[in-house]
This record gives sequence, structure tokens and C-alpha cells, in this order.
Amino acid sequence: MTDHERGAQIDVAVFGAGRIGRIHAANLARQRGVRLKYVVDVDRAAASALAAQHGAQAVDADAALADGAVGATVICSSTDTHADLIERSAAQGKHVFCEKPVDLAIDRARGCAQAVERAGVVCMIGFQRRFDPTFAAVKARLDAGEIGTPEMLVVTSRDPGAPPVEYIRRSGGIFKDMLIHDFDIFRWILDDEADTVHATGSCLTDPAILDAGDIDCTAVTIRTKRGRLCQINTTRRAAYGYDQRFEVLGSGGMLQAGNVRPTEVTAYSARAVSTDVPEPFFLERYRAAYANEIAHFFEAITGGTPVRTTIADGVKALELAEAASLSWREGRTVRVGCGA
Amino acid sequence: MTDHERGAQIDVAVFGAGRIGRIHAANLARQRGVRLKYVVDVDRAAASALAAQHGAQAVDADAALADGAVGATVICSSTDTHADLIERSAAQGKHVFCEKPVDLAIDRARGCAQAVERAGVVCMIGFQRRFDPTFAAVKARLDAGEIGTPEMLVVTSRDPGAPPVEYIRRSGGIFKDMLIHDFDIFRWILDDEADTVHATGSCLTDPAILDAGDIDCTAVTIRTKRGRLCQINTTRRAAYGYDQRFEVLGSGGMLQAGNVRPTEVTAYSARAVSTDVPEPFFLERYRAAYANEIAHFFEAITGGTPVRTTIADGVKALELAEAASLSWREGRTVRVGCGA
Amino acid sequence: MTDHERGAQIDVAVFGAGRIGRIHAANLARQRGVRLKYVVDVDRAAASALAAQHGAQAVDADAALADGAVGATVICSSTDTHADLIERSAAQGKHVFCEKPVDLAIDRARGCAQAVERAGVVCMIGFQRRFDPTFAAVKARLDAGEIGTPEMLVVTSRDPGAPPVEYIRRSGGIFKDMLIHDFDIFRWILDDEADTVHATGSCLTDPAILDAGDIDCTAVTIRTKRGRLCQINTTRRAAYGYDQRFEVLGSGGMLQAGNVRPTEVTAYSARAVSTDVPEPFFLERYRAAYANEIAHFFEAITGGTPVRTTIADGVKALELAEAASLSWREGRTVRVGCGA
Amino acid sequence: MTDHERGAQIDVAVFGAGRIGRIHAANLARQRGVRLKYVVDVDRAAASALAAQHGAQAVDADAALADGAVGATVICSSTDTHADLIERSAAQGKHVFCEKPVDLAIDRARGCAQAVERAGVVCMIGFQRRFDPTFAAVKARLDAGEIGTPEMLVVTSRDPGAPPVEYIRRSGGIFKDMLIHDFDIFRWILDDEADTVHATGSCLTDPAILDAGDIDCTAVTIRTKRGRLCQINTTRRAAYGYDQRFEVLGSGGMLQAGNVRPTEVTAYSARAVSTDVPEPFFLERYRAAYANEIAHFFEAITGGTPVRTTIADGVKALELAEAASLSWREGRTVRVGCGA
Repeated sequence: MTDHERGAQIDVAVFGAGRIGRIHAANLARQRGVRLKYVVDVDRAAASALAAQHGAQAVDADAALADGAVGATVICSSTDTHADLIERSAAQGKHVFCEKPVDLAIDRARGCAQAVERAGVVCMIGFQRRFDPTFAAVKARLDAGEIGTPEMLVVTSRDPGAPPVEYIRRSGGIFKDMLIHDFDIFRWILDDEADTVHATGSCLTDPAILDAGDIDCTAVTIRTKRGRLCQINTTRRAAYGYDQRFEVLGSGGMLQAGNVRPTEVTAYSARAVSTDVPEPFFLERYRAAYANEIAHFFEAITGGTPVRTTIADGVKALELAEAASLSWREGRTVRVGCGA
Repeated sequence: MTDHERGAQIDVAVFGAGRIGRIHAANLARQRGVRLKYVVDVDRAAASALAAQHGAQAVDADAALADGAVGATVICSSTDTHADLIERSAAQGKHVFCEKPVDLAIDRARGCAQAVERAGVVCMIGFQRRFDPTFAAVKARLDAGEIGTPEMLVVTSRDPGAPPVEYIRRSGGIFKDMLIHDFDIFRWILDDEADTVHATGSCLTDPAILDAGDIDCTAVTIRTKRGRLCQINTTRRAAYGYDQRFEVLGSGGMLQAGNVRPTEVTAYSARAVSTDVPEPFFLERYRAAYANEIAHFFEAITGGTPVRTTIADGVKALELAEAASLSWREGRTVRVGCGA
Repeated sequence: MTDHERGAQIDVAVFGAGRIGRIHAANLARQRGVRLKYVVDVDRAAASALAAQHGAQAVDADAALADGAVGATVICSSTDTHADLIERSAAQGKHVFCEKPVDLAIDRARGCAQAVERAGVVCMIGFQRRFDPTFAAVKARLDAGEIGTPEMLVVTSRDPGAPPVEYIRRSGGIFKDMLIHDFDIFRWILDDEADTVHATGSCLTDPAILDAGDIDCTAVTIRTKRGRLCQINTTRRAAYGYDQRFEVLGSGGMLQAGNVRPTEVTAYSARAVSTDVPEPFFLERYRAAYANEIAHFFEAITGGTPVRTTIADGVKALELAEAASLSWREGRTVRVGCGA
Repeated sequence: MTDHERGAQIDVAVFGAGRIGRIHAANLARQRGVRLKYVVDVDRAAASALAAQHGAQAVDADAALADGAVGATVICSSTDTHADLIERSAAQGKHVFCEKPVDLAIDRARGCAQAVERAGVVCMIGFQRRFDPTFAAVKARLDAGEIGTPEMLVVTSRDPGAPPVEYIRRSGGIFKDMLIHDFDIFRWILDDEADTVHATGSCLTDPAILDAGDIDCTAVTIRTKRGRLCQINTTRRAAYGYDQRFEVLGSGGMLQAGNVRPTEVTAYSARAVSTDVPEPFFLERYRAAYANEIAHFFEAITGGTPVRTTIADGVKALELAEAASLSWREGRTVRVGCGA
């Protein structure tokens, strides 16, 4: 990541002062030529605290969006506010960085994509995994032809523990809430679109999740238009931490992206040789990725270059989540609409 | 592996003097109280060579089966001879060790199971993977409760290269020929039966395989009666060798069974830190497993203890192969009949 | 690393605007309550550039030291300036962070230690390895008794390539320049003092190094007062990068500190399974350690707590370097003066 | 390992029916054209049991040596019998395989070497580590130039626990009993001879070992005639098992020989990711090496090719053990007599 010289300064408004909002705010603050001007949160205390930390102001959404000096918004508020904030930002000619998902409703998400296109603003979706050094290295080496033509992708994506059931109830279901990242990884790594999707799953960790109409572990299979295969396995609870791996088999070899460990200590006892468990959760695991994606966003704005994770990618991932959800509910293979 | 004292000697006839026949013959020869008496093969030269190596006689099937002194047969001949040799061995009261599959036709396989049961002989199917030290250790630790209740199994099973298309044409298809081992691993590790099976696949390495009505890579998902999930990914061609891994996620952790390498050398160059590729193919990878399974077979016979891989296991794996084949052909999820 | 609230601001002068000076300046700038006020370097352009980057001023040493508002100095200039700057800082009542070594002459280093003590200022020596997350985790687990009593330490410390011979000529020799870090690791990890030191070495990479009176690879053995053993192997040139490992054997097990890799990619080709080589050199390998040590320094100053790497540690490491140098030159085991 | 056709049969007498004698007897029995004829042991019951297992006879040494049909002796009896049995075997024109060390007294060992030479028989010393697949692969890759010119060797050689003090008392000391293998590894891997040896050590596990005039952990440094460096660290007690590793640094990279694990299971718990500890001790660790060395011995005899570990190698390793012992006792660097 290099910071090139930039003439003008970009003022930014961050929506959402929760965990991920705080991460983005801190990373923003490190970009040269970028100033965090506003923090917006329905929890005014949280907004004020985060604003104070970075010399910004806590204001309401209307004020932030009305300020013509604000060149970009960073949307990390609750999912039900994303579409509205994207559309309002775009209408004001502000560039947008938005956390996934665009919206739980595919039509609304498509509407946002159109609004962004009409406004001609940059809109980047926070698929931070593409900016993880390990994942990005796999992609780069794959693109360089190191293992020939990709044929098969196996994604292991496991959370360390389920969120509260109240969260799950409003989450849009495991496919839209959790696997949406994996669907984006699939499209990015195989550089192909789904032809058919099959999903199954179970509720094995907590019956309350089933009562909420959801499941906590899934097994998804995608066959692409070019006949490539992808399997994704997920769970809401891996006792050993946050497990984020994938491997891509090509005609000439395989590339694996492994977990990241806090330290490189190996311990030998009478019973076992052991190393650290993976980083505990996404904030630690994707620390570098979050920094990289924000840098990428502002470089794209200032340099006029395209962003790597567009709102179209956000819509595509959502389509796959919908297809998987349908497959699971109806117990059948689902053919995905049009490709590109 | 322990050799306990055995009073009487068991004379054995081996059917098939190919690669796997030679492995079994050599392992047989090391069992105390076991004598390789006959080698049978349509290729008389091969039979004679193998027989000579172990001080045995090359005879035809009729002669070997007619000899009342032969207490056990070891069937490693071509698949289309398995069922007949099982039935004839059983009819003669001889114990049977038979390579997978029992037969390509599920009904014929079931008939063999009945014949074996009627005759009261031991019949063990050569699912050698259960006897691999690494795989067996995972199973033992799982059974000991180390990771709680199993929830999810991911099996990676990849051959280093496709066999000749002539072989594929007579193989019964990739599900019966190659995945039958993985279906057995699934049943053994999860200790559960399939409720639904979904399979898809592609032909990516050689169009001649497609012309022969088969595919060369598959993605299979099984959901068990207890709601556990299993994903199996296979290919006929992994450029880096024979890839045989699985991992089982439990409520309290995960156990992975990794590949075996020829040596423990690690090389550091200016470009990479590298270790050996996995053992090249099944003869090397499962060398210990083959020795262990033959020892287990004769211990079961002499000790009157049950074998771990019964003909019923062979039938079950075949049922899963049929279900997967049907799922792939019809593009739909298949519900697996009754458990038995 | 946590930032606690601090009332007053500390103004800091950095001496030396080279590689390590730039690292420290950037880390300084991230500490809450710390302001980089001055950058001093004989290369005024370098000083100005670094100062501009952080909103500081480029001044000469006298000006920086004369400013009573400067509470702390960070000394990263050339080795021959260390002692003078330490003494002048101390005389002005300023706290000192100084890169290793204190001085090439042991008596001068001892004089600095006395000056610091008289002045009652904090003086921390930049043994950043103690702040590396992996190394620090080994130490913490060792102290927690995980492997019982430590008995043996093996340190592998290899640079990716030799510096210019001009540098080597002024470096004080490999023991003072390179192994001084390893001597500190030894004292820290074994929590013991040397009784005898044996050192040998060779010049294998470049005869010019020998002409300069130095060697490029060494093998050092230390036996401690409590009879513990330590072996250190070093080279100026490891073709595969910067190799920084150690392992400590205890009565109940072993702890290893391994190298850090840029990514967690594993590649499978037909020839090998490979991962990344270690981080290329100290700036990358110890990035976190540099940040942690600067945070520790300012926490010690503001909190009134002791620093972990004192000037006494700097003197001790230097004594070991002198003993090793003598052992190498005279081909004999050297008994180290007074212990604690 | 390949068995080539051999015309005549070699009759063999094994001296010593202990652990290692049983290993060699079983490996012998698998060589084509080799027959175990006699087992000799002062413990007649042990001799009879081992003889019975392989269809051999238990006789006394005189009878075995007097039998002109015996073409080779395999000497695994106690160390104090080695020299005598080597000389008597040689005098009878029998080829000799002898466990290390040749003798505890260097002069006696040299006498054996001369006796063997005069007799013109093959005499192989049981430095089995050279036949370990991992160690042999490092040597082969080193010889093939993979890492350029070797510069430094680090050997880690640790037993899982000390033998009884009675054994230690008669063992000749840790350098002759335990490190003799490591000295052979040093000569073999660096393909060079020692110029100077420095050894130190301690008794940390059991004061009774010190009372017996020995130590239980050592740190040895060898500088070769070409200026290459070797460090060896050993202990009688590694709590995590038998630790047998080495790494050789070359001008172009590094090769490491790692430990061998019983299985390739990796377990993930909430606390750690863990794998098996190394194989427990030499019988398991060097199982393949023992088989390979016996095959090599008989191939050399029948093929008339030289053995890889000659009695001269045995003498050289003993010289290094003596030099190390002297260095330790006198606390000084020892120059080793004549090189090649």
C-alpha cells in the first residue's frame, strides 16, 4: 500500500459507530488527504465517543448528507439502513463505501446499483476478504497461471460462535448474513458465474436458531457455467475459533489460503506438538484487510480508478444467497438466472 | 498390530495377481499361521510369478476352490468376478476377503451378502482406509469424545491421474469406482446413515472420459438422518499427487487427517520453503493400511471376532454410489431408501 | 497495546532519520499524548523530509537538547554518537530511548549507565526482539511454568545478506553488531548469566570481510552459572531470507519461536508443497515489535513503571559480545567476569 | 529398497538377542538369499526365543564362528564384546555388521580396523541414521547441489529419557554412547573433517549421572578444516519424546531433516492446534533405517560394492567423541589429530 501525493482533502462521514465503524474510522484517519468529519449513529453516545477520538463531529444523517463538503460516506450502520443511505449518498454525488449486504431484498439492492450508476459515483462494497494479504496472494498467483486453469474451489468458513438469536432473526438468514462473503470469494477466485446452486444445512448448535427460521451450519455446492465446482462448508460455531480457509485446485496444482495465527510459537509437551488456534474473529483476522480496503477505496476515488468490489458484486453475491436459501428451503438444485 | 499365537495354519488362495494382489500376497506371507497356497489369475504367467515368489502354486479357480484345505480366499481379480467368487467361496465354507466393490449391480451385491450370511463365513471388504494409522487415529479419538459430537465431515479425495479410458468404461463410473471408498469413510466417521445425497460433477481433464459416459471431478453432499453434513470433493487428476485428507468438525473441536509424505525434509530456497508432495498413489499411501487390514482379517478368522468392514458395509457404500450417480444424472437431490 | 489516557503531552526529539529512525518516528506519532517535535540528522534533507511528514521541525542536536519542553529523546543515529547523546540527554533530565549498542567500548557504555542513574531518567535500549509477539509469548509461557525449568536454548539468527564492508569495518565486529541481540535474548529467556563463553567462526561469504578483520558466520556456546546451555548460530547471509528462531528446552517440554511469513499461502505443485519464505529483514519481521517497544517506552515514562530493556541490559550484552570476540580471537573458552 | 536376484545363500549368525538384535534378525529374515542360522546370547533363553522365531539355532559364540558355512556375522551384543567378535569374525573370513561403537578404547578400535583390512572382509558399522529416508534425502539433495556449498550444520539429538545409571556407568560417557551417532552425521553431511572441537555440558536431570562421572546434556561445536561450523545439542531427556533433527545451511539455501510422527492427525481444540509428538524412541524412529541398512549390507556383500558406513567411519566418530570428552573435562578447545 502506498500513499501517493494528493492535492485536495476528502471529508468523510461514517454511518455507524459500532465495531466495524470504529475499525473503518481508525483506518480512515491514517489515510493521507482524508479527514473524518462526521460520525452518525442512532446511539448518540457511541457517535460522540468515536467522533471525539478522531476530532470529528457527531451529527445526524441529514446533517452529514447535506454537507456539500463531504465527498464520501462510509456506511457501517445496520443492514436495514444501507440501501437508503447508498441512494441518498449517491443522490448527493458522494462516493460510497458500504458494508455488505447492500440490502436483504434483491430488488432493492438492484435499485441501489442503478442509483449509483446514474449518479456516477464510486460505490464499493465491503468484501474485505479480497484485501486480505493471504487471499489476495492466492488470487494473484492464480491469475499469474501458477496452477493452470482453476477447476475446483473448497471454502471453509466458520464463525467461532453464533450471534444472539435476536440478531439472527433480523439477519436475513445464514446465507445472506454469513455466506455472502463466501459467495463473493467464489466469484472472485473462480472468475466465473454460478449455473446451479445446491444448499443444505442443519441446526445443530442451538434450537432457538431453528425456531427463528434459520440454520447454523450449511453445505453449499455451486457448479459454474464453465463446469467448475465449488463447495462451501460453514458453521456458526467452531470451538477452536474463526476458521477461514479456502483451496483452489487447478489443472497444474493447488493453492491453499490458510488461517492466520497470533504468534508463531510451537509447544512440545509429552502429549502433543501444538501451535496457536487461529485469530479469534473477523476483527483480528481481517485487520490488515480492513486497512487495505479503505486505502483502496480512497485511492480509487482520488485516482479515478475502478474499485475491486463493486455494488454489482454485492448484487451478485446476494443473488447467490437467495438461490442457496431457496435450494435449502425446497430441497432442490436451483438454476441461477442470467450470468454476467 | 499384534500377532497372537495360533494353533492351526490357514491355507489361502489369492485371486488376481495384479498390483493389489501382489500387495496382499506379500502381507499374507508375513502373517504367522497363514500360508499362501494358491494364486489364480487368467494371466497364467503373472499367477506363476507371484506364486513362485511365495512358494505357492498357480492353479485355476476351480482347483483352488475345490481344495477343502483352503480356509480363506482373497479376491483381488477384476470387479466382474467378485460376486461369483464370493458366492462360490461362501458355498465352500471358505472365509472371504474381497476388494471393493462387491459388484457393480446393487442387487447382485445384496445377493452376495445373503449368501455369505447363509454360509456363516467371514466376509471382509477391502476398505483399507479404515486401517490407515492416521485415519484410524482420527476415528479412535473421535470415538473417545475428544471433539464432542460430530457435526460436519469434509473429504478431499483426489487421484494423481485418470486411468485409461478403457478402464473407466468398465468401472461402473466414478461414483462406484472411486468415491465408494469415500462413501465408506463417510459412514464410518460420522457413524450415521445418509438421508439425502446430492452430487454434481464435470469432465475437465479429458473429453474422452465424457464420451465414455463418465466425469472426472465431483462434488457430493450428504445430509444424514441426524442432520449431520458431509461434503466430498474428488478429481481424477491432482497434479501434485494423491491427495487423501478429511476433516471432521465436532461440537468441541476438529480433527484433520492429513497426507503422508515420503520424507520429513524441508527445503528453504530464495523463493519458497518446501516439503515433499504426498505419497504418489494408493500403493504407497496405504502401505501400512494394507498390511493392517490383512492382519485384521486373519485375526478375525482365528479369533472368531467380527471384521470391521463387512459385506453389509460394501452394500451400503454401493447404495450411496448409486444415489450419487442418480443425483448427478438427473440434477436433483436423491433421498436414500431405508437404512438397513 | 493499549493507549491509556494521559494528561500532559510529551515532546520528543528523534536523532537519526534513517530506516530505523523513520520507523520510530511513525510509531511515536501514533502514541496518544506524544508529539514528535524535532528530527535531527547530519543529513539535513533526510531530517527535513521526516520532520515534514510528521509536522515536526528539523533542527540540530544542540537546539533539540536545549529545548526544556522536550521530555524524551529517541536515539537512532550512528553508533559513535550514542554515548554522547545519552549523556547529554540525561544531563538535561530527558528520558532516553537508544538503539543498540550503547557504545562499542564497554567502559564508555558503563559510564553512560552511571550517567543515566545519576540523572534519574528512564533509559531504554532498543532490544526490540523482546517485544515481538512470538518471542514475548514464549517468554510468558516459560515464566508461567509451561515447560518446567529451562535447560537449553538454541538460537538461530541469520541475516539475509551482509552489509557493505565499509559498514562492517566500523561495526565493532559481528559479535557487537549482530549477536548483541542474541546475547540479550539469551539473558532474557534463560533468566541467567553467562559463566563461560566459547565462540568460533569463519568467513565464508566474502573474503573482504576477513580483510576487514571480521567473520561472517559464528557458533557461540554459553554455559550459565546454573549450568544451563545456550548455542547461538549466526550468519550474515541466509539465501532464503531473515531467519530468526529460537527454541528453549525445559524439564517438561520445549517452546519454539518460529519465523513469520508474509502470507499463509501453501502451494502444491508436481514437485513440492511450498509456503512463503520468512519476512525479508528486520524492518518487516519486527514491525510489531518496534511499535510495541515504543508504546512500552512511553507507558513507562508516563506511568512511572520500569522499562523492560534497561541500559544495564545493554551493558551486559556488550560484555558477552566482548567475551565472544576474545574467545574467537584466542581460540579458547572465556570466563565471564561478574555475573549479576 | 530392491531385492535383486542372488544366486547363493548367505548364512548369518546374530550376536545379541536384545532389542536391536531382534530388529536386525527380523530384517535379515526378509532379505532374499539370506538365512539366519544362529543366534548367540549369554542369555540362552533370549537366544532360543529369537532363534525359534526365525527357524534358527541358539548356539554359543565358538560354535557360530567355527561354522565355515556362516558368511557373515551381525554383532549386536554388549559393547565390550564388539572388538573381540569383529576380530574373530574377520579372522574366519566372515563379513561383519557391527553396532556402534567399535570399542570404547580408540586403539582397540583402530586394531579392529586393521584386522578387517588384513582379512579383506566387509565390515559395516551400524550408523543407521545414514539410511533413514529423511536424512538420506537431505544428503542426496545436498550432494546434488540444491543449496550450494554447505557452511553450517545444526544437529538436535535428544533422547526421551536417560537409561539406568548402571548402563551409563559402563557406557563410556555421553560422547561415546550417544553423540557418536551425531559425530557420524556431522562427517557425513558436511563431508569434511574436524579441525577443532569444543564441548561443554551439564548434569541437569539426575545427580546420580554426575556421580557416575557423566553429564546428561551437552553443547558441542566443531570447526572443520575448511572452516565450516557444526553445533550439536543433546540431552538424555526430552519430555516430548525422541527428537532427531538437523539442518544444514548452504550458500544457496537450507535443508532441514525433521522428526517423524506416528500419524498425520491435526487436532483443533479451543486452546491449541496440535499434532503428534515425534516417534517415541530409536526403534520406532529408525524402523525404516534399520531395514535399509541391513539390505545395504547384504547388497554390498553379494554385489561386491563398498558399504557406506565403514569401520574407518566408526574409528573417526570415536576420535571425535574422545576429543569432545577431553574438551569437556578440561574446559578448552581441542585440536583434532590428523584429518582424512
